[in-house]
Amino acid sequence: MKSESRKEEIIRAASILFKEKGYSAVTMRDLAKAMGIKAASLYNHIDSKQEILSTIIIELAEEFTTGMNQIVNSKVDAIKKLENIIDLHIDVTLRNSDGLASLNNDWMHLEEKNLQYFEKMRQEYEENFRAIVKNGVDREEIKPFNIEIMVFSTLSTLRTLYLWYPKQKNIDAEILKHDMISVLLKGMV
Amino acid sequence: MKSESRKEEIIRAASILFKEKGYSAVTMRDLAKAMGIKAASLYNHIDSKQEILSTIIIELAEEFTTGMNQIVNSKVDAIKKLENIIDLHIDVTLRNSDGLASLNNDWMHLEEKNLQYFEKMRQEYEENFRAIVKNGVDREEIKPFNIEIMVFSTLSTLRTLYLWYPKQKNIDAEILKHDMISVLLKGMV
Repeated sequence: MKSESRKEEIIRAASILFKEKGYSAVTMRDLAKAMGIKAASLYNHIDSKQEILSTIIIELAEEFTTGMNQIVNSKVDAIKKLENIIDLHIDVTLRNSDGLASLNNDWMHLEEKNLQYFEKMRQEYEENFRAIVKNGVDREEIKPFNIEIMVFSTLSTLRTLYLWYPKQKNIDAEILKHDMISVLLKGMV
Repeated sequence: MKSESRKEEIIRAASILFKEKGYSAVTMRDLAKAMGIKAASLYNHIDSKQEILSTIIIELAEEFTTGMNQIVNSKVDAIKKLENIIDLHIDVTLRNSDGLASLNNDWMHLEEKNLQYFEKMRQEYEENFRAIVKNGVDREEIKPFNIEIMVFSTLSTLRTLYLWYPKQKNIDAEILKHDMISVLLKGMV
């Protein structure tokens, strides 16, 4: 258990460095220095920089996948499903905006097996999102605009939340959820 | 005039390379190779890689600044102003999505004077955008949600259009304008 929590500490510190400098520019030596420990002792807890990256990204992607699957299988209308997706993105952003920087900027540095797994999860996520919007249009819960434009408009905002929200000092999480759901779904005018 | 058009050709080719590999990774030799000419002959038209980057970014930023100033000074309501801003982003994206990749990803590589000029234009653009939304809320043309959330939700979508739209095969520019204005301003439900 002690070792597990040390590993989490390494991953948290690495997330911050990856966000600031990008995965490629960070060395295990940089990470050890940032943590005030010796590089050699990192390897008691972690095999490689790649293991850190894949842990950060795959855990987040699995969190989105699990959340999306629950939403897809829930017995609520399309609008409520979209509200729950927005909540999911906000919750993950609040908990781990540093990790989301790696997911967004450094996913292409994952090694083959994890890269494929990640790309599969991301594609399924988008397909589920698209299917919810399409279903909502078919059932006349959502206006009949171009599906791709609606998916892009929503996801582009949710996917950049991690960059914007940490810089906001005066926006409470509950106001963020309420207003973002309203703005993204019902519009501002 | 011949030299001017050759310069434009260099800038267009460089935009594509910067988008694919990032400014830092591209050499003048790469650029010459991509154009099928000798590296030395590039310097008949351009002083440096930095000159190419600043030309790409500053021209685009000035285009947004000019467009925004016209919109700010126009005698229309806030909603019409926001519609015109969305149109402006779509027009620039259709004309130069490669250049927008440099503006979004490589602006930090501008040298001091141009960096300051760019950051000033970007900040003024955001302030004008914010003022239009705020004014619309004050005049009850726009719903009283958190201003920053409305600005972020809209700009995050407009600023990533250059990544998404070139991959869409079946969305006509007029449909894009119409549906994006509807989705961003009036919402999808």
